Amino acid sequence: MIQITLPDGSVKEYSSGITPMDVAKSISEGLARNVISAKFNENTVETTTPLTENGSLTLFTFNDADGKKAFWHSSAHVLAQAITSFYPKVKLTIGPAIDNGFYYDVDLGDDVISEKDFPAIEKKFLELARGKHVFSMREVSKADALAKYSAEENQYKVELIENLTDGDITFCDHSDFTDLCRGGHIPHTGIIKAIKVMSAAGAYWRGDEKNNQLTRIYGVSFPKQKMLTEYLEMLEEAKKRDHRKLGKELELFAFSAKVGQGLPLWLPKGAALRNRLEKFLEKAQKKAGYEMVMTPHIGQKELYVTSGHYAKYGEDSFQPINTPKEGEEFLLKPMNCPHHCEIYNHKPYSYKDLPKRFSEFGTVYRYEQSGELHGLTRVRGFTQDDAHIFCTPEQLDEEFKNVIDLVLYVFGSLGFEDFTAQVSIRDMENLDKYIGKTENWEKAEQAIINAAKDKGLDFVIEEGEAAFYGPKLDFMVKDALGRSWQLGTIQVDYNLPERFDLNYKGSDNQLHRPVMIHRAPFGSMERFIAVLLEHTGGKFPLWLTPEQVILLPISEKYQKYAEKVLDLLENDEIRALIDDRSEKTGRKIRDAEVSKIPFMLIVGEQEEKDGTISVRKQGEGDIGTFKIDEFVSFIQKEINSTIKQF
Amino acid sequence: MIQITLPDGSVKEYSSGITPMDVAKSISEGLARNVISAKFNENTVETTTPLTENGSLTLFTFNDADGKKAFWHSSAHVLAQAITSFYPKVKLTIGPAIDNGFYYDVDLGDDVISEKDFPAIEKKFLELARGKHVFSMREVSKADALAKYSAEENQYKVELIENLTDGDITFCDHSDFTDLCRGGHIPHTGIIKAIKVMSAAGAYWRGDEKNNQLTRIYGVSFPKQKMLTEYLEMLEEAKKRDHRKLGKELELFAFSAKVGQGLPLWLPKGAALRNRLEKFLEKAQKKAGYEMVMTPHIGQKELYVTSGHYAKYGEDSFQPINTPKEGEEFLLKPMNCPHHCEIYNHKPYSYKDLPKRFSEFGTVYRYEQSGELHGLTRVRGFTQDDAHIFCTPEQLDEEFKNVIDLVLYVFGSLGFEDFTAQVSIRDMENLDKYIGKTENWEKAEQAIINAAKDKGLDFVIEEGEAAFYGPKLDFMVKDALGRSWQLGTIQVDYNLPERFDLNYKGSDNQLHRPVMIHRAPFGSMERFIAVLLEHTGGKFPLWLTPEQVILLPISEKYQKYAEKVLDLLENDEIRALIDDRSEKTGRKIRDAEVSKIPFMLIVGEQEEKDGTISVRKQGEGDIGTFKIDEFVSFIQKEINSTIKQF
Repeated sequence: MIQITLPDGSVKEYSSGITPMDVAKSISEGLARNVISAKFNENTVETTTPLTENGSLTLFTFNDADGKKAFWHSSAHVLAQAITSFYPKVKLTIGPAIDNGFYYDVDLGDDVISEKDFPAIEKKFLELARGKHVFSMREVSKADALAKYSAEENQYKVELIENLTDGDITFCDHSDFTDLCRGGHIPHTGIIKAIKVMSAAGAYWRGDEKNNQLTRIYGVSFPKQKMLTEYLEMLEEAKKRDHRKLGKELELFAFSAKVGQGLPLWLPKGAALRNRLEKFLEKAQKKAGYEMVMTPHIGQKELYVTSGHYAKYGEDSFQPINTPKEGEEFLLKPMNCPHHCEIYNHKPYSYKDLPKRFSEFGTVYRYEQSGELHGLTRVRGFTQDDAHIFCTPEQLDEEFKNVIDLVLYVFGSLGFEDFTAQVSIRDMENLDKYIGKTENWEKAEQAIINAAKDKGLDFVIEEGEAAFYGPKLDFMVKDALGRSWQLGTIQVDYNLPERFDLNYKGSDNQLHRPVMIHRAPFGSMERFIAVLLEHTGGKFPLWLTPEQVILLPISEKYQKYAEKVLDLLENDEIRALIDDRSEKTGRKIRDAEVSKIPFMLIVGEQEEKDGTISVRKQGEGDIGTFKIDEFVSFIQKEINSTIKQF
Repeated sequence: MIQITLPDGSVKEYSSGITPMDVAKSISEGLARNVISAKFNENTVETTTPLTENGSLTLFTFNDADGKKAFWHSSAHVLAQAITSFYPKVKLTIGPAIDNGFYYDVDLGDDVISEKDFPAIEKKFLELARGKHVFSMREVSKADALAKYSAEENQYKVELIENLTDGDITFCDHSDFTDLCRGGHIPHTGIIKAIKVMSAAGAYWRGDEKNNQLTRIYGVSFPKQKMLTEYLEMLEEAKKRDHRKLGKELELFAFSAKVGQGLPLWLPKGAALRNRLEKFLEKAQKKAGYEMVMTPHIGQKELYVTSGHYAKYGEDSFQPINTPKEGEEFLLKPMNCPHHCEIYNHKPYSYKDLPKRFSEFGTVYRYEQSGELHGLTRVRGFTQDDAHIFCTPEQLDEEFKNVIDLVLYVFGSLGFEDFTAQVSIRDMENLDKYIGKTENWEKAEQAIINAAKDKGLDFVIEEGEAAFYGPKLDFMVKDALGRSWQLGTIQVDYNLPERFDLNYKGSDNQLHRPVMIHRAPFGSMERFIAVLLEHTGGKFPLWLTPEQVILLPISEKYQKYAEKVLDLLENDEIRALIDDRSEKTGRKIRDAEVSKIPFMLIVGEQEEKDGTISVRKQGEGDIGTFKIDEFVSFIQKEINSTIKQF
C-alpha cells in the first residue's frame, strides 16, 4: 500500500502501482472524465503512470496550465503524425507546448508547407485523433534510439539522443507513430476535438542561425470545437483591439523612424488622455499624503554604481554619455529611485517627519533590442507613476495597506474588476542570499501578507520569488478578453537605504535606517494605456475619454447654434467638438459611432428654436431631447458615476 | 563750416574744430553740465576732440551705457594713478570699463593688495579726482611709446604697443599721470564724486594661464555719493535675494554631487510651485488653442543632423549615446523642435487645419562647462515652456499678436511690469546669408513690427540680429532691483519646415511650406523661477506661493481646532499648514514672517468658542477677526485679485 497526499491535504491509501487516472476515478467519475494530466512529487507524469511510492499527487484538467501543456504537447505528436502522412521524408525535430498552443519544427527538405495545405493537415489530424489512440511511454536504450533515427537519417534526433544518457531515453507511441519524448501526455488522442494550424514560419535548429533552417508549424487545439471557435473569435477581437492599431486610429500616439524606435511621440489626444490619468492619480496621491518631486533624466554613472543599477543595466543598456573636456560620464536614468534617495538625503529627518512619500511621473530609459520592441508595451523610454515611501519599520504595515488602497482605487476607476495578486517572499532554504536584517524581513513579509488579507485580495504566496533586497506584491489584471497583464507593483527595499546611507533620528536619539517602498499603481503610463486600450477596445470610461460629446449640426445653417452649445459645454469642462463637415447627418452619426464618442448631440431647426439638443448615446441610440443645462447636469452625473473619489 | 547731425535728425552748422562739449553748450547749459562722452560718426570721441568734418554726433550723460563706459574707463585711469602712488614699482597693464564698473590688471611684483588697503586707495582716488584734472589724448610715435615703457621695464605695455602700428598709438594724460590708451574719457576727473574698490583677485595676463599672474582690482564709481550708496544697498539686497540662497531657505530645489552638477532636483515645495506655474500657462494656452504633446528626451543623432542642431551643439555638447550590439547613436535632445516637426509630419494637413499649435513642457539637456554653472540660471538640464506654431504665411501676423498677448499675460500675472522688447531683423547689407524667400522675410519682419506696435510694446529694432532662419522678438524684463533679464522669446523659422519637408495642401490644392513660430513665454522654468525669486525676494504672488496660510494655535489645547480650520481651508483648495511646535505665539509669528507666509491665523480659546480666527497679514500685522467662511471668501478674493483670467 502507498499513501497519496492530495492538494487539499487529505491522505488516501492505495495499492502500489495505482495510476493517477485510477485515483481520479476513486474520487469521482466526473473528475476522471476531465483529468488529462498529473504531477507526482513535483514531476510531470502520465495519467497511466503506475505510482509505487508515497507522495503528493495533483490531477490536472484542461482548465489548469499544466493540463493545457499536456494537451498541447500531445497535440504536437498528432500534428507530426499528420504531417508525416503527407510528407513521408520529413525529419521531425522538437514539438513543445507553448503559451497559446504548440508547434513542431520540421525539416521538409525541398518541400514547402503553406497556408493552403493547412485544411488537409487539420482534416488528417482529426481523423487520426478520432482513433482514440493511447499515448504510451517506453524506455529505449541509447543504441536502439540512435539506430532508429540513424536509419531515418534524422540528424536532429540523433543529436538530441547523443546528449542524453542511457536510462533517460524514452519513446512515446500512439497509433503507428513513435517519437522521442520525455513524456507528459493526455490519456488518448480522442480527447482532442478541435485543431487549427495557425501558421508556418522559418526557424533555425536550436535557434542558432548557423544551423539548418527548419519549418515551424504552429497549432492550437481544444477538447471542444466551441472552445476553438471562441478562441479564434477572441484572436479576431484582440486584433481589432490591438493598441497599436487603436492608438493610430484614435490619434493617441505615433512613432517616428527619425526620432527612433521604441520612443513614442504622444499626439495631442494621447497626451491629454495621459495627462488626465496623471492628474487623476496625482489628486488621489495628494490625499494620501504624497509629495511630488521632479528629477533630471540623467545622472552621473557613479550614482548608478552606488545604487547597483549600473551593475544590473550598465553593459547591456544605453551606453554612458561623455562630456567634452571634463571627462564626466552620465547615464540615462533606468530608475527614479537613486534620484529620490538623493532628495531624501538633502536634509536630516527625525522619526516624527516620517513617512516621506516622494512621487514623480518619472521618465526612464532602458535599452531593448529593436526586435523586442512592441507598440507601447515594450519601449525604450517610458514614464513610471513612481513613488518612494521612506518610513520606519513600524510604519511598514500601515503604509503597505495604504498603497493597496490606492492601487485598488486606480483599478476600480479604470474598469479593471478582475485581478489577482502575488506575494513574493524569500526562499526559506537560502536565507543568506537576502540583504537586510532577518527580523525586518519577517516583519515586512508578514506586513504584506496581513495587508493583502486585510484588503481581501485574492492572492498567492510565492516562496523564493522575492528580490534580494525585499519582498513584494504584484497585481495581475485580466482584461476584457481574459488575457492577463502584470500591472501595479509594491516592493519593499532594504538595499537602497543601505547603499545611500539614508537615516533618520529615532525617539532614542540614535540614527536608524528607514525602509523604502517602491510602488507604481499604473506601472508605466505607456504600458497601462496600451492595456487600457486593449481592455476597452478604445471605449474609455467617460471621465477619461478624449471627446465626451460630438455636436452634429444637420446643416451649415445650424453651425452657429452648435458653436453656442459647444461654448456652454466647454465652460462646464465637458470635452466636446463639432462635426462641421458638409456630410449627411446619417453619415456623421455613423462616423461618431466608429470614433466611440459617447454622446452625439444633433442640432437642427427645432433644437435651435427650442434651445435644446437631441441626444444619442454611442452604441445605444436616441435617448431623447434635452435642454442644454439639463444635458450638462445629466452628463456631469454620468461622468461622476464613472469615477469614485479616493 | 561743418554740418553736424544730431540724434533727433536736426542738422546744425558749426565752425570746423568745434568740440562735442561746445555743441552741448550751444544746445543748453544743463546739457553741457551733464555731457561726459560722445560718439561722432560711430566712433567714440572725447568731449574735447575737435570735429573737422560733417557728421552725426551723439552726446552721452552718465545715464547712457556709453556715458557709463567713458566714466568708468576714466575712473580706471585715476585708480591706476592712486595705486601707483602707493606701489611705485607697479606695472600697469589694461584697465577697461565693464558692465558694473571697471577693473585694472596690475603686476605688483612681490607686493600684495588686500581688502584692508582699499580705504586708503579710495581716499587717494578721491583726492586725485578732486583736482579736476582734464583727460587729454596725444598721438605718440611707436618708438617713443616703446621707449617710455622699456624704461619702466613694463613688458606688458611693450607687448601691447608692439601689436599696434605707428599712427594708431595714443597716450592719455591727466594730472601727472600718463597711460597708453585708445581714448573715450570724460572731460575731467572732478566729475567722479564716489568710488568703491570692490575686490582684488588673481587674473592671468591676456587670460592665458601660461602667462604671469596679475592682480585684478575691481572698482565702481559714480558722479554722486548717493548713487554709490544706492548701488551698494542694491548689491546687499541682491545678495539676500540670491535665488540659490532663497531656493535653499524655502526648500524649493537642491543639487546633489552624486546626481551631477547643474542638474536641479526639485523638492516638494519647488515642484509644486513649478507645477502651479505650468498649469497656469497650460490653462491660458488651452484657451489660446494650443494642444499639449509629449516627446522623449532623446532622439537619434540623425534627427539632429537633419535639424542642423548636431552641427550647432554636437561636438561641444553631451556626446552621443551608443546602444549595445545595434550600433545606434542617440543624443540627449538639446531642443524640442525636431520632435514637434516629426509630430507635425505624422499626418497630412490642409490649410484649413492650420494653425497647429503644439506645446510641451519639454526638458532639454545642453552641456555647460562646470565653471559656467550657476544655480538655476545656468544649468545642464532645463524645461522649456516650449511651443511650435505651424501656420500659413498669411496667418503669421495674427499668430504673432496672439503670442504677444500670451507673453504679456504671463508677465502681468507674475508681477513683471517693467519690460522692453527687441525686434531682430536681417542685416540689410548681407541679405544672402538668410534662408527663406525674401518676400516671406519681409512679411514676417513687418508682421513682428506691426504686432509689437499694435500691442503697444516699448521696443527697438536691431538690424542684423535676426538668426539666419528667421526674425525674432525678445523680451527684456527689469526686476525689482532694476536688473535686466532676458525672458520670453518669439521666433519665426523658415529653416526647419524646409529641413523636415513640412507641408500642407493649400486652397490651390498644391503643397506649401508652413511657417514655424518657436515661442516660450517663461523661457525655461528653471531660469524663470530663479528670476522670479530674485525679483520677489521669495515673496511670491498669493496665487503661486507655496503656503498661503499658516495656523498658529496658541497652545496644544487648540491643535484640534486648528486642524478643523485646516480641513475647511483645504476643502476650498487654500494651501495651509499648522505650526504645531510648542513655541510661544510671538516666536511662531516671527518665524512665519521670515518664511513670508502671507496670512497667519491665530487660534486660541476665544476663537474656538466663537468659531473664528484672528488674522495677521505678513509684513502688515493684525487685520482683524474673521468667521472661517468669511476668511475663505476674503482670501479667495485676494488670490483672484493677483491672477487675471486670460
